[in-house]
Amino acid sequence: MLLLDKFFYPDSIAVIGASRKPGKVGHEILRILKENKDKGIFRGELYAVNPDAREILGVTTYPSISQLPSAPDLAVIAIPAKFVPGAVDELGKLGTKNVVVISGGFAEIGGEGVALQEQLVEVAKKHGIRLVGPNCIGILCPETGVDTMFLPYEKEIGGKVFESLPRPKPGSISLITQSGAFGVACLDYMAGEKLGLAKFVSYGNRADVGEAELIDYLASDYKTRVILVYIESLGRGKEFIEAARRAVLSKPIVVLKAARTKAGTRAAISHTAAMAGRDDVYDAAFRQAGIIRVNNVEELFDVAKALSMQPPAKGKRIAVLTDGGGAGVMAVDELESRGQIIADLSGETEERLEELKRKGIIPPIASVKNPIDLTGSTNDEAYVRSLEILLESPVVDGVIVLALHHVPGLTGNLPEKLAEVARGVDKPVVFCDIGQGEYAVAFRERFEELGFPAYPSPERAATAMSALTAYGTVRRKFLEAGLITP
Amino acid sequence: MLLLDKFFYPDSIAVIGASRKPGKVGHEILRILKENKDKGIFRGELYAVNPDAREILGVTTYPSISQLPSAPDLAVIAIPAKFVPGAVDELGKLGTKNVVVISGGFAEIGGEGVALQEQLVEVAKKHGIRLVGPNCIGILCPETGVDTMFLPYEKEIGGKVFESLPRPKPGSISLITQSGAFGVACLDYMAGEKLGLAKFVSYGNRADVGEAELIDYLASDYKTRVILVYIESLGRGKEFIEAARRAVLSKPIVVLKAARTKAGTRAAISHTAAMAGRDDVYDAAFRQAGIIRVNNVEELFDVAKALSMQPPAKGKRIAVLTDGGGAGVMAVDELESRGQIIADLSGETEERLEELKRKGIIPPIASVKNPIDLTGSTNDEAYVRSLEILLESPVVDGVIVLALHHVPGLTGNLPEKLAEVARGVDKPVVFCDIGQGEYAVAFRERFEELGFPAYPSPERAATAMSALTAYGTVRRKFLEAGLITP
Repeated sequence: MLLLDKFFYPDSIAVIGASRKPGKVGHEILRILKENKDKGIFRGELYAVNPDAREILGVTTYPSISQLPSAPDLAVIAIPAKFVPGAVDELGKLGTKNVVVISGGFAEIGGEGVALQEQLVEVAKKHGIRLVGPNCIGILCPETGVDTMFLPYEKEIGGKVFESLPRPKPGSISLITQSGAFGVACLDYMAGEKLGLAKFVSYGNRADVGEAELIDYLASDYKTRVILVYIESLGRGKEFIEAARRAVLSKPIVVLKAARTKAGTRAAISHTAAMAGRDDVYDAAFRQAGIIRVNNVEELFDVAKALSMQPPAKGKRIAVLTDGGGAGVMAVDELESRGQIIADLSGETEERLEELKRKGIIPPIASVKNPIDLTGSTNDEAYVRSLEILLESPVVDGVIVLALHHVPGLTGNLPEKLAEVARGVDKPVVFCDIGQGEYAVAFRERFEELGFPAYPSPERAATAMSALTAYGTVRRKFLEAGLITP
Repeated sequence: MLLLDKFFYPDSIAVIGASRKPGKVGHEILRILKENKDKGIFRGELYAVNPDAREILGVTTYPSISQLPSAPDLAVIAIPAKFVPGAVDELGKLGTKNVVVISGGFAEIGGEGVALQEQLVEVAKKHGIRLVGPNCIGILCPETGVDTMFLPYEKEIGGKVFESLPRPKPGSISLITQSGAFGVACLDYMAGEKLGLAKFVSYGNRADVGEAELIDYLASDYKTRVILVYIESLGRGKEFIEAARRAVLSKPIVVLKAARTKAGTRAAISHTAAMAGRDDVYDAAFRQAGIIRVNNVEELFDVAKALSMQPPAKGKRIAVLTDGGGAGVMAVDELESRGQIIADLSGETEERLEELKRKGIIPPIASVKNPIDLTGSTNDEAYVRSLEILLESPVVDGVIVLALHHVPGLTGNLPEKLAEVARGVDKPVVFCDIGQGEYAVAFRERFEELGFPAYPSPERAATAMSALTAYGTVRRKFLEAGLITP
């Protein structure tokens, strides 16, 4: 475990194949690490290796690995494939134990590439070196500034320059991905959605470090609250499932596996030349391991956000609190489609809500059946007092609050007021307001700042809540099996 | 038909129940209309009626309807329910033919409200007046500035003021909605997503003008290219289906009907006190009428955007062109899930793509099987030349272009270059780039400016394409039945 730790928390990094030429992989990686060092995010030593330079971008540069002043904790290699095994051998002699090989030209090209990769693994093993890659995008850890994302930083559209690959802020969601291209797209998505990242690993050909070990590591990583995995096929499926089963005891794992249909599987086989395997077999294995499976990138992060912010639900009985009847119906539709139970509030809970109505706290035309419809005549107070009752109700395991902000009685203080009621209660609450205008966006952001995941549609809120009950169910199952303590 | 036209193109509007008091419905409506008049968007005459004022917000105000200088083309009523039939009677005497009744307190409250609504309808009928409402949000037509959206214009969050109910720009998507609350949420969504609106109608209790008539009107409306309908239940189902069937001959209709599950139906019945009816009956009727059904707000507008920008597909054989293998697989997964055919390119099309490879125009490691994976080594030229071949291919009915922008070889000129190839070709092209960062957002916007709908996930792009093939199928069916000419 300690060995993997240095991939994310190195005291020193060497870029092997550092280049003066902007656009070159070895230049971009050095540039980003140097920037992170200058900003004080990366606090370790930074070295570069290039036979023809003594200094690049202000970083002291050594002609060869053997001339480095000390063994770097982490080496990032961006040199032609045929030189990589030799470089790793030199690093091993120096005492480096963690290497990221960005370079392609190994098993993914077949033929001699396969042999070269075998040679690479052998050399690494000889020295006890752990390898990420080859043929990968590598590692991103916003907390420590380890960042090997070499793709263009800025690009133009119509003469205007934009950040092309924005990095997410530090946070509690970790992602490991078989596809580098999809991985950077996910980072871009997270950055735009203001989701925080703990660790990101694109492991490419997984010649050494693979999914199972990464999952084990992330399970033990204090900063990671949710583990996300993108795969197209599994190398060592049994190990993966076993690692997942262990990890799920402490934190949720969400898997997005492409190739869920026959056509998708055919496409995956044609592209990765790997046996993608039957999707239903994966599905059963995921379920057995307590993995939450999602079907697309939006769902991946909707679910991750909920799991990183809210406690799992103790059951599937969900209440929906809304000011829009139609939106309430949509939430209920999606909850039922996802196997949730629409909490039956009849009895004490309904009685307490009726009392609010008698007292004039919620509108007389409100419906106190689930979904509870406070109608367009609602105000903040009606939401607060209703949510209080739902959170105290013994027949409710989680609450979706749909507050369409347009109605006159709702104010921008609603998030604070609701948060005050829900904070510290061991029952998940997720939020929804429909709209993409500036108020709707700011309203949802305010909820998230306060720790409540917020969604732009009832269906996405219901999807998120379903993941919270799914993880709750897994935990209950494991509890009953004596695998965890409450 | 002419009667409904004046709801959207009136030469004069009177606000009955105009108020001096900000926040009051009769104030907000007058304020917005006055603003639109001052901006030159609303070009007609504007009158106000209030017994106690001679001027409100700079608008000449009359003590009673009978004192208005002439019959307004359109009257918007926001006075207590019990006075509404009398006001409509006065308007009828004056000669007004189009009235929007915003006021609630009619059939939706039951009992005396039902009787009052019957009385209202009778009075209107007597004068040949067409009514929208009562109990509704009313009408929005960005082109002419008719806007009865009375909900708060601005709201605060943490001391900062935001536009609370942004209006979409003029455009070609029309929406009619049973739910006012959901309707305004949709407007907010459209505004944020920069989707253009032709006509919006929240018809409330549909005492007179209902879905069927509105669909007939929008079918004949030159500005409307796609008709969207949100319903929870149908008043006159047979009329609706017949109107839809007629409209679909000239433009697509997309319906979002909540209450698609048992729990949702129960909730809808409890809330609207209407017989929601069995969902499968609706489903079959929609299909027969050639209506495209969607399940949530995101899908509603994803589909609307595609249908408003691109021609329907002549068949279901879709090609996917990508630089990310995983994203390609996801698109194929979703296409297959939605009953599309993954175009088999073997033969001439593959041969032409192979030729590009031999010429060094597309990367040697590219896969020319569908999904065509140009890999991270692609550049703009590879996309342009491949798309050209796919659009010319006799075995391809539509193309999804997934261009993950992060790779070094792609530039901000790709949208223009691809548009040049695709423009004028009678085959739909939809676009996708994953990411929520500023570049991804700007990249997608650029495609949309050029007329190509762009989506942030392969699944959403596939959903949009499936709607284009669905509408193509409907058109083909109607063609074969001799109902339309090619």
